[in-house]
Formats: sequence, C-alpha cells, structure tokens
Amino acid sequence: MEYSTFGRHVAIDVWGVDFGLLNNADFLKNHMVEAAEACGATVLSVQAKQFEPQGATVLVMLSESHISIHTYPERGFAALDCYTCGETVDPQIAIDYMVSVLQPEKYYAKKLIRGVGEMEVATPEVNRNYVHA
Amino acid sequence: MEYSTFGRHVAIDVWGVDFGLLNNADFLKNHMVEAAEACGATVLSVQAKQFEPQGATVLVMLSESHISIHTYPERGFAALDCYTCGETVDPQIAIDYMVSVLQPEKYYAKKLIRGVGEMEVATPEVNRNYVHA
Repeated sequence: MEYSTFGRHVAIDVWGVDFGLLNNADFLKNHMVEAAEACGATVLSVQAKQFEPQGATVLVMLSESHISIHTYPERGFAALDCYTCGETVDPQIAIDYMVSVLQPEKYYAKKLIRGVGEMEVATPEVNRNYVHA
Repeated sequence: MEYSTFGRHVAIDVWGVDFGLLNNADFLKNHMVEAAEACGATVLSVQAKQFEPQGATVLVMLSESHISIHTYPERGFAALDCYTCGETVDPQIAIDYMVSVLQPEKYYAKKLIRGVGEMEVATPEVNRNYVHA
C-alpha cells in the first residue's frame, strides 16, 4: 500500500500567554490530545516533560505525523507545531484548538506544504475563537 | 532564570532514499540520537514507531526542543525536522548528519527563525557530506 506524502505543517509562535497555562505539562498534554482528535488525527503516544524552574515540552506522535509544544512561561511564549500527512486531517484545526485554549495576545504563524517537491510557505489564517465540541 | 526564546527550526523533505534505511525505526532512532549529540543537544527521551506494512516515525525530545522524522519508504521519502532553542545548539548540524546518513537524491529545506516576533523563512545550506566524528 502506498500512502500520500503530501502534508501540511503549521508552525506558530504564541506570545502573551498566561504563565500557569504554559507551565503545566499535564494540562498541555491533555489539550494536545484533544486537539489531535478534533482534527481527526489518531494519537499513538505522548512524551511530556515538566522543566524546573519552569517550562514544558510535549511531543504527541500521531498516525499522521506529530504535534509539539515548547513553552517559556516566564516569557509568556510557546512554539507550537502541527504536521499532518495526507488530505483528510487538517493541522490548522489542532492549531486553532490550542490557540483558543492558550488565548495569546499575539501570534506569528507559517504553514509549510510538504511532500510534493519544493516546500511552499504560506501565512495561515488562525481562528482564535475555535469552538470546542 | 530566564531562557532565550530564540530558536532555529530546519524542516527538510528528502527524496530518493533507500527503502531499507527509511523502514528501520531503530536505525533512524540511533542515528537521530547521534545527530542530536553531534549538534550539542541533550536527548531527554525518544518515541519510535515502526509502521506496517512500512514506514517509521521517530520523535526525539531534547532539552533544547526536538528532532522528528516521518518516513514513506515505498516513496523513498522522509520529512525531517530539527528545532533547537538558544544560540549554542545549531540544528543544521543534526540535519546535515541525517542527510549524510540517508544520502537522498534530492531534498528541499526551509529554515524558520522562531521566538523573536515575525518568523523569518530562509533556505538553508545543506551539507550532505557531513563527516562523522
């Protein structure tokens, strides 16, 4: 069986996020699993790390690629990515889900189109008012 | 203690890679750990998944962010990322290490500068002749 190499990778830097939200690896992990499910992806496993004195990293392995977050609570900053392969799962939904949870004051995002030759880079539309089901 | 939010994220799609190299999660995992060490990063944990009938995903959590690979051996394709925070660790070294291991016929890469405001996107120099120590 051949799978499509086509994929979409959304990378977003979020700023002005509440310290407590960014400094809670379990909270982030739980929401990232929900974000994955919201966009129709299948979670295979999760690595989560709470750093001292602050900071968290969560890496969610999907059947369709991955979701990652790295946080700097003392700066109100997090770097969040969702990369999904195939046509059926849209990583922007997972990103919108997480943005709606984190409610950053500002964000900067890029979307890479991968697996089709030269990578196309676009600036995606982010919906910070994603409505949770 | 405050950490720098500055980071560099290299995303590379490689094509024309040997099926056997891409279809071996353990082989990829071992080399990704070495690639992380080569660029001076610290490996915290690893998730590796061998898919059936073929394909692999490896996610390496670093103190300084992450390295990921998703492979489509039947297409000779892999999507590889290395994102590292701070000034001291250069993700391009880990990417060059992996490219020298995989020896793709073609590749397409982008580098995102993150954690400083608007993301800058560049096309990085890739060295496929990285010399292993």
